[in-house]
Amino acid sequence: MPELSFTQQMLPAVELEMQHVLDLSQGDHLDEFHMMMAYHMGWKGEGAGPKATGKRIRPLLVLLTCAAAGEDWHCALPAGAAVELLHNFSLIHDDIEDNSPLRRGRPTVWTRWGIPQAINAGDAMLTLAHLALHRLQETAGVSTAFEASNILQKTCLELTKGQYLDISYETRQELDMLEYWPMVSGKTAALIAACTELGALVSGCTASSREAYRDFGYYLGLAFQALDDLLGIWGDSTHTGKSAESDLVSGKKSLPVLYGLMSEGEFSKRWRQGPVGIDEVEGLAHQLEIEGARDYTQETASCMTDSALKALQQAQPSGEAGQELTDLANKLLNRKI
Amino acid sequence: MPELSFTQQMLPAVELEMQHVLDLSQGDHLDEFHMMMAYHMGWKGEGAGPKATGKRIRPLLVLLTCAAAGEDWHCALPAGAAVELLHNFSLIHDDIEDNSPLRRGRPTVWTRWGIPQAINAGDAMLTLAHLALHRLQETAGVSTAFEASNILQKTCLELTKGQYLDISYETRQELDMLEYWPMVSGKTAALIAACTELGALVSGCTASSREAYRDFGYYLGLAFQALDDLLGIWGDSTHTGKSAESDLVSGKKSLPVLYGLMSEGEFSKRWRQGPVGIDEVEGLAHQLEIEGARDYTQETASCMTDSALKALQQAQPSGEAGQELTDLANKLLNRKI
Repeated sequence: MPELSFTQQMLPAVELEMQHVLDLSQGDHLDEFHMMMAYHMGWKGEGAGPKATGKRIRPLLVLLTCAAAGEDWHCALPAGAAVELLHNFSLIHDDIEDNSPLRRGRPTVWTRWGIPQAINAGDAMLTLAHLALHRLQETAGVSTAFEASNILQKTCLELTKGQYLDISYETRQELDMLEYWPMVSGKTAALIAACTELGALVSGCTASSREAYRDFGYYLGLAFQALDDLLGIWGDSTHTGKSAESDLVSGKKSLPVLYGLMSEGEFSKRWRQGPVGIDEVEGLAHQLEIEGARDYTQETASCMTDSALKALQQAQPSGEAGQELTDLANKLLNRKI
Repeated sequence: MPELSFTQQMLPAVELEMQHVLDLSQGDHLDEFHMMMAYHMGWKGEGAGPKATGKRIRPLLVLLTCAAAGEDWHCALPAGAAVELLHNFSLIHDDIEDNSPLRRGRPTVWTRWGIPQAINAGDAMLTLAHLALHRLQETAGVSTAFEASNILQKTCLELTKGQYLDISYETRQELDMLEYWPMVSGKTAALIAACTELGALVSGCTASSREAYRDFGYYLGLAFQALDDLLGIWGDSTHTGKSAESDLVSGKKSLPVLYGLMSEGEFSKRWRQGPVGIDEVEGLAHQLEIEGARDYTQETASCMTDSALKALQQAQPSGEAGQELTDLANKLLNRKI
């Protein structure tokens, strides 16, 4: 039997750890309460299975960082479970806030159980994320557990700041490109930075190494978002094939759109006239490209990617886990345009 | 100048501590984000002032317990701020879940800023509650701070369990009286129990004393809720005067109502026919009284009150703070019928 890679070993261990924590929500008359969260995690209900769980990238980043920094990754399992539960809390609430009926092809929690229960289920999942992290006390001691808890709470606050900006931008016609970064920093990069920082913290590596791992996560998050914005307009599935899924149709204020607005050219004129139809997507994406938004976004993503990989190099990840961490980053940063 | 009582000294200190923590939500472009929370706390916006802040009973319980157990109450300020912020997080989300337009006479956060921003402001306030508690590290050391954090997270989970039950009861016609206690235990008593337990924890008193303080808070919470249910039907303002505010009109499944449903008499027949009109309130309250629901609720409240005061006695609160703690409990338990 060929030996399993780190990633292959980690994924089932994280699921088990999260399921164990979710059991805290059980009790008399609480079957449905537990069910809402197990459903959202992709474990129960119609459509449950690998497609419904998501890729669990965040816990992998925690555990691979811990191992690459020289510690047994099992010690960081509580942190891995915590970041994934936190991510899923934010998805439950985001889906209500964005009025999204579907998540990974399944009805969202609020469409199945109503908004009041969905708000409460999100609150419970957020609490379980922190309780999951507290289990670090057993694997890493009370001081490390407390420091980790501080990191995660501060990350949560960044998340809510980013989310506030995102919601408030929806109703604003004009937006400065400078306002893009605080939002993305809070909504995406803060949690990815917390993943690599927590992995490093548990490993007990030096402060400078921990900072390098944190920077790696932070820039990885920013690069990931810039690429996501690029794919949202010029990706295979959004450009010619499925125009309905284009960010131009949903009206998302992504980086290329903000660049186009700033340029004050043909694109901005059309954008300001109101919602973009599916039949306009190809032409408008082309116009945006002519005005330089595609190159600009690509360059920005490359620049962030370079910063991420430089920070990772500085952290000096070691061994097989170090290689898998580098591979994971490259995979995330080389998604197909 | 006459010396200020403990309570008089504590109240402004708690406000200051909470305001300090709320400042963590400030930053570029975040004025409105900070404002939503400061508004809810009663500090800013139209109608701000003492009437809008609430009574801050929970932090008083924390601080008086800490002092009555022999420690300088200033050490427990982070815990006092935390429980009040946590309470207010739950109010922001409850108001959305219950579709309540007003809170303490002012528009609720969701009516002023919309549901998406209100959900997010609640998430932020919950996070600030935990960050407030982390400041215990400075006044009580890292082990105590971590233990306190564990207590508060578990309390949060109880809150969401109670809230789940409460929301799910709304759509259920039949309800067993036994289902009342888990809901009230989660929604009300768990946080009051955490208040007195946290105060005792910070004081460093014995484990048995801490347990007694916790029991005191728990039964105080249950007694408080039973009394609240009594006042919701036979209170001065609900019985004859302002029938519109009666729990019979809102349809709340309170303890007397559940007792009446169990009795299967005239009350239950009428209740099952649908919403109660304002003109029916007096007659229906009288019917419920004849069937024994008032006596039962009163006896239940008295029983819980006895348990609370017995636990407090067992905890042996000392000095002036001990007296004020006893006075506060008596004040809460002797609200006018």
